Parts: sequence; C-alpha cells; structure tokens
Amino acid sequence: MKSKILIQLDSDNQPSVFDGVVAVDAGVDQLFRHGGVRPADVRNLVYGAIFTRGVKDLRHTAIFVGGADVSAGDKLMKEVLSTFFGPLRVSVMVDSNGANTTAAAAVLSAAQHVPLEGSKSVVLGGTGPVGQRAARLLARAGSHVRVGSRSKDRAAAICQSISNQVPGATLDSWSTAGTDDTAAAVEATDIVICAGTTGVELLPNSLRLAASQLKVAIDLNAVPPLGIGGIEVMDKGCERDGVIGYGAIGVGGTKMEIHKSVVVKLFEAADQIFDAEQIYEVGQLLVQK
Amino acid sequence: MKSKILIQLDSDNQPSVFDGVVAVDAGVDQLFRHGGVRPADVRNLVYGAIFTRGVKDLRHTAIFVGGADVSAGDKLMKEVLSTFFGPLRVSVMVDSNGANTTAAAAVLSAAQHVPLEGSKSVVLGGTGPVGQRAARLLARAGSHVRVGSRSKDRAAAICQSISNQVPGATLDSWSTAGTDDTAAAVEATDIVICAGTTGVELLPNSLRLAASQLKVAIDLNAVPPLGIGGIEVMDKGCERDGVIGYGAIGVGGTKMEIHKSVVVKLFEAADQIFDAEQIYEVGQLLVQK
Amino acid sequence: MKSKILIQLDSDNQPSVFDGVVAVDAGVDQLFRHGGVRPADVRNLVYGAIFTRGVKDLRHTAIFVGGADVSAGDKLMKEVLSTFFGPLRVSVMVDSNGANTTAAAAVLSAAQHVPLEGSKSVVLGGTGPVGQRAARLLARAGSHVRVGSRSKDRAAAICQSISNQVPGATLDSWSTAGTDDTAAAVEATDIVICAGTTGVELLPNSLRLAASQLKVAIDLNAVPPLGIGGIEVMDKGCERDGVIGYGAIGVGGTKMEIHKSVVVKLFEAADQIFDAEQIYEVGQLLVQK
Repeated sequence: MKSKILIQLDSDNQPSVFDGVVAVDAGVDQLFRHGGVRPADVRNLVYGAIFTRGVKDLRHTAIFVGGADVSAGDKLMKEVLSTFFGPLRVSVMVDSNGANTTAAAAVLSAAQHVPLEGSKSVVLGGTGPVGQRAARLLARAGSHVRVGSRSKDRAAAICQSISNQVPGATLDSWSTAGTDDTAAAVEATDIVICAGTTGVELLPNSLRLAASQLKVAIDLNAVPPLGIGGIEVMDKGCERDGVIGYGAIGVGGTKMEIHKSVVVKLFEAADQIFDAEQIYEVGQLLVQK
Repeated sequence: MKSKILIQLDSDNQPSVFDGVVAVDAGVDQLFRHGGVRPADVRNLVYGAIFTRGVKDLRHTAIFVGGADVSAGDKLMKEVLSTFFGPLRVSVMVDSNGANTTAAAAVLSAAQHVPLEGSKSVVLGGTGPVGQRAARLLARAGSHVRVGSRSKDRAAAICQSISNQVPGATLDSWSTAGTDDTAAAVEATDIVICAGTTGVELLPNSLRLAASQLKVAIDLNAVPPLGIGGIEVMDKGCERDGVIGYGAIGVGGTKMEIHKSVVVKLFEAADQIFDAEQIYEVGQLLVQK
Repeated sequence: MKSKILIQLDSDNQPSVFDGVVAVDAGVDQLFRHGGVRPADVRNLVYGAIFTRGVKDLRHTAIFVGGADVSAGDKLMKEVLSTFFGPLRVSVMVDSNGANTTAAAAVLSAAQHVPLEGSKSVVLGGTGPVGQRAARLLARAGSHVRVGSRSKDRAAAICQSISNQVPGATLDSWSTAGTDDTAAAVEATDIVICAGTTGVELLPNSLRLAASQLKVAIDLNAVPPLGIGGIEVMDKGCERDGVIGYGAIGVGGTKMEIHKSVVVKLFEAADQIFDAEQIYEVGQLLVQK
C-alpha cells in the first residue's frame, strides 16, 4: 500500500501550519510543504506528482492549494489543473485562507434551519473571498441572494460574475454603506451571513431585531467587535431574540470537519477537484450522517 | 491517538538538520520545518498549532525554536508565548544554537563532582549565549559565580541581568583580558566552564595548574586550539593533573540526551515552556536515573 | 530501529516533488526537504546529519543531492563529500535533473541488446548533462564512443574530460552540425543514444535507416518532435525497421526503478557514494534479476 502524500502548495512564504495539521489528522502520511509558491513553480511540482507513481497509484498522491491570498491561490489552482493531461492527474483541493470551507460551513449551517430553495438571503461583506463563495453556494442552492457591500458597483460585479457561473441564479446587489441601506438590505430576508472584515460590526443589534422575517443570522467574524450585534462568537444554532444564531467559532467546528473530510476524500480517486461547490457537497454528506 | 507534530521555527534560512534528527529520534511523527522565520511570521504559524486540535489534544502538537542566532531565537520565543491565550497553547522548547542544552549539560557535568550550592565557579567567555546561560544556571543552583570576559563592562552587564532574574544570586564580573587577569579570575574557584569562541585558548595549561582549588574544568570548544589547556575534546569526567576534565564531545553526549528527553516531554502536556532552567531540570532527572 | 531520514538538498527554490515521491516509495520514513541550497549552506546541514546519531546508526541517515541544474548539484555534492571526515559520514546520492539515473537507464537498455565491450556507440547531444554521463558509462564499459555535438570543440572537451576519468577509454569527438556530419557520426555504430535538447530532432528517420550497422536506437526526448525519427516515446525494446528502439518513457520505467533501488541501498551502509557509475552498477544488478 502506497503512502498517502499530500503536496501543499502555499502562496505565503511560510506554508500554513493550520492546513498541515488538518492534513495529518486526516491521515496523510507524508506532507510535502511548499511555501512562497508562484504560478511559474507549479508545473514542475505537479510533474513530480503525476510522473512518479503508476496511473493506478496516482490516487495516493494529492495536492492542496492554500495561502492567505485567495486570488493567488486561484492562480495556482489554475496552473495545477492546466498541467494535468489524460489520466496523468491527481486530486486537488483549494482552500486559500479557509475561504471555501468557511463559506461551505456557513451556508450549511443556514440550511439546517431554512430550506435554501426559494429562500431569501443576504451576504454582508459579500464581495470578499468568503462572502463571494457563500453567495455563490446560496445561489446555486436556489436562494434569492442579495450581495451587500459598501460599494454597490463591486456588489453588482460579483452578482454578474456569479450569474455567469450559475445559470438561473437570482442575485441582487445592495449598498450597505449607511444604516438605512443596511436595514433595507436585510429587510424581508430569511438568512443573513456576515462575512465582512475582522472587527467591524456590519449589522447592529437594532437592525437585526428590526428585520422581522429573519430566521438565521451567521457571523463569521471571530475578533470583537463582532459582525452582527447580539450574536456571540461561540453560538452554534442557539436562539437569540427569535433568531437562530451562529458565531465564527460555532461555524468553525463544522468548517474543520468539512476540511478534514475533503482531505480524506482526496485519496479515494485521482481525478477529483474540490473547489467551493464540491467542498459544500462533502459538507452536505457530513451533516446528513 | 493523534500524531505527534513538532513545528520547528528556525531563524536560519535552512532549518537545522541537527534539531530535526533529534526530534525524529525523540519520537516525533511529523516535523513541520520552517526556515527563515521572522517574528512577524510567528503569530499565524502558532494559530495553526492552537486552533486545529481540540484543547484536549493540544499536547500532541509542540513548537521548537532554533537557529544559529540565539537572540533571534529569543525574539521568536517571545512572539510564540505572546500568541498563546487561555488553554489555547502548546508546549514549546527554545534551544537556538544548542545554547540551552549545552549550558545545561555543562553545569550538570560539574554538579556530578562538586555540590553547586556554596561552590565557587567561573565562566570564561561568560557573555556569549552559552556562557550567560551556564552562569545563570550556576547562580540559580547557589554557586558564587564569576563571569569572565575580555570586557569587564559586558561581564558586569550580564551579572546585573542574571541578578534581576535570579533573586539572591551572587555574581561578580571579572576581566580576562590578560594572563594575570585570567589567573586571578580562576584562582580560588572550584569549577571553571570555558564557553568562549571556537578555536581560542582562554585558559592555558599553566594557569589551570596554578589554580590550586580547581576541581572541575569543562571546555565547550570542539575545534583546536581548545579552550582549556590540558583538557581533551573527548574527556568525560576523567582526571587531568588532579582536576576532573570534560571536553566538548564529552559534554555533547549529555547535551544530546537532554535535548532528546526534552522533546519527549514536550508531548506530555500542552502548557510547558522549556527555556534554560526547565531544560536543566530535565537533565537533573536524567542524571539521577 | 532508527527511522530512515533522507536529507534532500536541492539547488532549486522549490525542492523536487519527483525526488521526494521516489524517496517515500523507496521506504524513507522522514524526508527533510531543503530548497534553494547553496554550497555555503551545506556544511552545517551535513553536520546535522553526522553529529546526531552514533556512528553505528549513521546508516539510517542519508543525503540526496538534486535540482534542475546539474552543475549546481555537482558543487553541492563536492561540499557534502568535503564535510565528511573519518567515520563521520552518511551515504549520498547525486541525481540532479535525473541525469545520472537517466544515463544509467539508457546505457543499460543498450546493453540488453549489444555487448558494450568492443561495441561502437554514438551519443548525440553528447555534451549535455545526460549525454556526458551516458558517454562516460559507455566508455567505462569498453565501448568505442563517439561524442556528437553541434560544436566539435565542446565535444572534444568532453572526450578529454572523460579520458582523464576513465583510463584507456576510446572516445572521438564528432560534429553533428549538418545532415552529412550527423550521417557520418552515426555510420558504422551499433548504438545511438540521443540526449539532445527537448523538442529537437537530432537524427531524422532517413539517416537512421541509412546507418546500416545500427542495432539499438535510444531517444531520451519525451516532447515532440522526438529526437530520433521513427522511434516512439513509449518504445521499450521493440523492433523499428530492423533496429531495437527505446523512447523516453520506455527508458523512464527503468530509470525510476534504478532511482528507487539506489535510495533503498543508501540505508544499507553509511559510507556509500552514488554518482553515475555506482548508480549504473545498481541498475546492472536490477536487470540481472
């Protein structure tokens, strides 16, 4: 039986310890940790993955793309995929800055309480890496998604980009520059996911209480002041003034389970690609158990 | 059972192979080797250590701080400790340039032959990284310590610094700029530890023979000319003209045993800090066996 | 039983994944992967290998020198060997850019069909890293070797260099700048090995067919256009117009087996050096099985 080798391609100078520990706990035998990886480095590293073991054994090698910079990670991912050819490929997961697993865990948490199909949702901080992915996952599940941002233009660009990827999606861009704007963006929604910058309150408690239809409020900010007033960082599906609340650490446990499960799955076949959607699907299976 | 993960944070561009091999031989399952680590990198790496496994399992992850530059290592160590909070911490050992384990092994070797409490000792090259630590360990054990240096001012600064850390310590600064100075510094001492620069004889044989009260002479210099005349590099507790002698390799075996034992202990609990003193304590337990 | 530690010293910024996977599949327990290694880094890294385990256990540690730049690898290798002293040494293999294992596999493939002693052979692209080594191995086995290059001067320099290393070797330099030159270089040879630059056809099919005495044609170019007309990349000892043909992937399987076997052998004793010749000898044992 071949050792399970995970090749960690990280855009940061020091490769993530977080991703390394999760990989080890997911049963990886040998971790090849590469920091400071640039797109030009990728081809050769991937050749080393696909030319060393027979096609039959390629499922025992896999690639993880990470690093704090989500767009740098996406560039590395693109290079990885373009290097594969025919059966010469290994499974690969991309989770730069934990954005994919976090977005999947957040949407999955919402789905425990509200059927997403036909729901109304709003993502505050919807143009950041986690926000974009959460909006995309919600749209794909059939939710009518409002993308909130201080800049309505940037929100509109994200809506357009997601619409291109998800045919039939219903998305609207909302400004959340001021209090009135934010109140309007949240009004008449079932779900709010707050994926804004660390330490900024995007939805004060008063606005949250005013949003009369709101059923689930999910805040992904772990550093006070938190992103949604009245939701605590440890909340995990508890009731807060008639709303089901999730805080960053509450979602974090699910995120970690999803991350670990995807790493386990990487070694089940050699032809898998785990980006936001596939990671979300793994999360769905986990939750059903 | 979780794998034992040791995170090696090294200030050198190429992380130490020495520290890596010792870690493997101490039973570490997965070694995360980071070279070129700067203080600004530390927080994120430590987060990866403390946020990935449950509090109950944090004892299976640990951190080792090393590199040739002892003061750079101390800065990394400070950052590591300042990142921990509450129960979110892992055990950590600092041994940049082997200074802590070497100083511990040297003082421990002396203690095999002379009760340290109330003894008189002199550390030549006492302002260097190993010398400082040896002086501190001797002072803490109740020895009256002379810190010798070509510069009396630097020696005095070290004495002051150690006094601040070890209440009640008795320390004196001695110039060892010339032969007469050195002879005076060694006179009426029981123990001399020579921790000077590689390839410089700090205590010629004639001065050593003249120090009538001397019982133990420990030289930590492995490259000829050695630091103490008449002591050989392989000496390990043998008699040399009425004095018990230790050379660098003689001390090195004990140093290695201490290093390995501390790495083993890192994984016994999550809240341990191994700096010079705690490393010395581990050495004491080893010797008692 | 000590863990098998392989220290990978790679001159490229990102250490080779290829060499890492082969090492793992050869049974290495712990891989210490160093990228961007310069000659000045080597001494300290090697000290870490030779000063950590007792002399009796040094055979459980080994060094692999690699990287895309063969001459950089040779410089690292020289530093490694100059750091060893007395019994303080570990076994070491150098295979920068796979040049040694590829050359060994190519010559070994030829030897399956033509007794090398007294044979006539030509190496096209004979001044490159693989070509030089193939020529040296052929010369040492008693073949009369023609070294072909666009520059006859460079070919002559390689012949001289090999003659200095292999007393009694028979080598001639040949220009292969034009079609007539190339035809002459191949005429009356038993073996042609094509080790030229990727994507350049050095021996068109018509010239190959015209070389009436040719018995084995080995092409090490994997990217079309291939180096020898009429030989396919997957060929492994099959007949092509009366000639036994080998393509890059056909040779590659043998190369991989040799690489893996040498890594296994690294851990059988602490005093072995595996450069082209010793790697070739391991290949001979493999083929005899």
